[in-house]
Amino acid sequence: MGKAGLPVSPLAPASFPELPVIAGVEFSSGAAGVKYQGRTDVTLIRIAEGSSIAGAFTKSSTRAACVLDNQAKLAQNADTNAGAAIIVNSGNANAFTGARGLESVAAVTGAVADALGLPQNRVFSSSTGVIGEPLPHDRIIAIVGDLKAGLDEAGVAAAARAIMTTDTFPKGASATVKGDGGQIRIAGIAKGSGMIAPDMATMLVYIFTDARISAPLLQGALVGGLASTFNAITVDSDTSTSDALIVAATGRSDAAEITDLSSTEGQAFVAALHGVMRELAQLVVRDGEGASKFVEIQVTGAASEDDAHRVAMAVANSPLVKTAIAGEDANWGRIVAAVGKSGAEADRDLLKISFGDMVLAEKGWRSPGYDEEKASAYMKNQNLIIGVDLGLGQGARTVWTCDLTHGYIDINADYRS
Amino acid sequence: MGKAGLPVSPLAPASFPELPVIAGVEFSSGAAGVKYQGRTDVTLIRIAEGSSIAGAFTKSSTRAACVLDNQAKLAQNADTNAGAAIIVNSGNANAFTGARGLESVAAVTGAVADALGLPQNRVFSSSTGVIGEPLPHDRIIAIVGDLKAGLDEAGVAAAARAIMTTDTFPKGASATVKGDGGQIRIAGIAKGSGMIAPDMATMLVYIFTDARISAPLLQGALVGGLASTFNAITVDSDTSTSDALIVAATGRSDAAEITDLSSTEGQAFVAALHGVMRELAQLVVRDGEGASKFVEIQVTGAASEDDAHRVAMAVANSPLVKTAIAGEDANWGRIVAAVGKSGAEADRDLLKISFGDMVLAEKGWRSPGYDEEKASAYMKNQNLIIGVDLGLGQGARTVWTCDLTHGYIDINADYRS
Repeated sequence: MGKAGLPVSPLAPASFPELPVIAGVEFSSGAAGVKYQGRTDVTLIRIAEGSSIAGAFTKSSTRAACVLDNQAKLAQNADTNAGAAIIVNSGNANAFTGARGLESVAAVTGAVADALGLPQNRVFSSSTGVIGEPLPHDRIIAIVGDLKAGLDEAGVAAAARAIMTTDTFPKGASATVKGDGGQIRIAGIAKGSGMIAPDMATMLVYIFTDARISAPLLQGALVGGLASTFNAITVDSDTSTSDALIVAATGRSDAAEITDLSSTEGQAFVAALHGVMRELAQLVVRDGEGASKFVEIQVTGAASEDDAHRVAMAVANSPLVKTAIAGEDANWGRIVAAVGKSGAEADRDLLKISFGDMVLAEKGWRSPGYDEEKASAYMKNQNLIIGVDLGLGQGARTVWTCDLTHGYIDINADYRS
Repeated sequence: MGKAGLPVSPLAPASFPELPVIAGVEFSSGAAGVKYQGRTDVTLIRIAEGSSIAGAFTKSSTRAACVLDNQAKLAQNADTNAGAAIIVNSGNANAFTGARGLESVAAVTGAVADALGLPQNRVFSSSTGVIGEPLPHDRIIAIVGDLKAGLDEAGVAAAARAIMTTDTFPKGASATVKGDGGQIRIAGIAKGSGMIAPDMATMLVYIFTDARISAPLLQGALVGGLASTFNAITVDSDTSTSDALIVAATGRSDAAEITDLSSTEGQAFVAALHGVMRELAQLVVRDGEGASKFVEIQVTGAASEDDAHRVAMAVANSPLVKTAIAGEDANWGRIVAAVGKSGAEADRDLLKISFGDMVLAEKGWRSPGYDEEKASAYMKNQNLIIGVDLGLGQGARTVWTCDLTHGYIDINADYRS
């Protein structure tokens, strides 16, 4: 069972992966009782002096107090010689909590700054859970001392658990890449399973690396990967108030500093970082509320990249497509309808729809080779690939989603209480 | 039980209404066995000579063959002295059926034209049901003779039943309005319960009136009402390939011809027509697949009308809002999140959210007068009003939707088979 008492997603990996230790990053988790009882719900992460920090956040116009605070602090271009910290709680999102919400953020990040001897503008925070309830920040502040005492470079798996809400499994991913003169390690954790339709960043994601790289270059590497990773997933078309992705680079690797993202080492680092981002994004979909199928939507031949994204998201968010997948019904007509409503340029007579290697529809109607039995058999797979070729241009986009099942209704008709 | 074997929606009216006879309009329904067995599935409607016809159709780029055909015929500005006919089948949408789909439309409308002695460009058609299967049009043509024999001005209720697919109850609405020198009667029927997020028109809707009014004026009256009726509802955010709304005015009323929509009589007619459109639109939501609650979303104070529509639809389509309503959970934080993702201009600290007369949130956080118990009690109602005031400008829009329940998954994970 996951922390919220839900059965573990059938799409979960067998176990939490072995993540490499990132020198200069320590974790500590504890139970503050913010909302949940009998589980950890706060994680403190200390990042060593000399680290670069980058971040991306939700574009929601009702974003949470901690998101606004993180954005303001990152925009200040704070002294990169100082250390940094991130404190995260689950159980309460501290979103739509007005002036009191900002006071809570100031109180919590102030307490962490005092305890760790850091400037307050290098202490970032995230809160995830219910929207609109005041955050009982005293409960978090009360355990900051204990959290500090427990800081440990090996604490990443416990941190991945403490930040879960309706998640049914903890999510981690890593990569190791050859730098100039040594290995560079990347390790990340994420939480998220509902309210997932990221817009610039998503959910809560923390990625750490020992690479030596400046904050502006790290930010560039991060932003360049968003479109094909966190902005390419959706569980339920609902964008969170609290999406936050923070990347910290400690510079403790033996490899030389990355000063150019287009160098061989720069490209290798960017590719590895994006690989970790993609894996974490896909893990969030694999823990999509009630999910029983993991679905890749490959759109090609669109008139533009924007059109490809529009079509891919229209298919991925269509409740009718998602329920057909849940019912293992090869109902490709609903994909046609989703393409039609997307607003993207489309020509019915050029449209081609395929499941895996099987072409179901082309040239404006059912493919002559269409085999209902084979199509239905394909739908029994746990991992599905839906191809939509618009036949118009070079625009392409791949996105990931899950099906819409009774489990989603169970979880969301009764989450808050 | 409805025709598809589903229990009747708890939001259904007690019975099908008494609709006034519209002189010059006859209906006949029969069982062609297009897909369903043991029920009627084809309706023929004959409209007398001298009638004006207007229409509005889906904007989907993958619209069905019959929609394309209707649009082409209406654009030809066909001779309004000739009579007209509409033939409708359920069980197969004849959408994404390529050249063969157009052949089916030509065959069916040609057979009706021959049988009734009408020019073929005055025979309109609609098909609703599964997408992507060839329409077995011979089965429809085989009963056209029987349908002709059964034409009857009193056949409207049977027609409302024959056009149902996953609908659980037949839908009708009417109005009578004082014209210049006599009464004008309006009667309409509709079908629709899933794939409902109209874009210009919706589902299948047929409205008849004995008003004397030219086709261009009738079209103007129709189009002016779309934004606040059919384009203001959503069940599941999925736009159909087959949405069609046709209005016919037979001119058989004793009232004088309406030659100006802004005259007293013109305004009364337009208001009555829009009232019938709104009632039919709301009936579609009341038959939303799996619906247990009817929800009105009132957005006010938006920076523009477009923004008001965007916010209203973001709230109405949010799976998290809809599942919270299904669970009778006053989880207004999900409404905040939906406003935030809508893309409309919003200021967290000006936003006000209310349920009925109860203000839940204002000035950036929970209202001081918020009473969880009262809010929860309100959610037990079958008809709910959610108010969102953005506090920015004059833009306002009201839309209607339903909740998202296990029933929706039941119906759609297994509809086609």
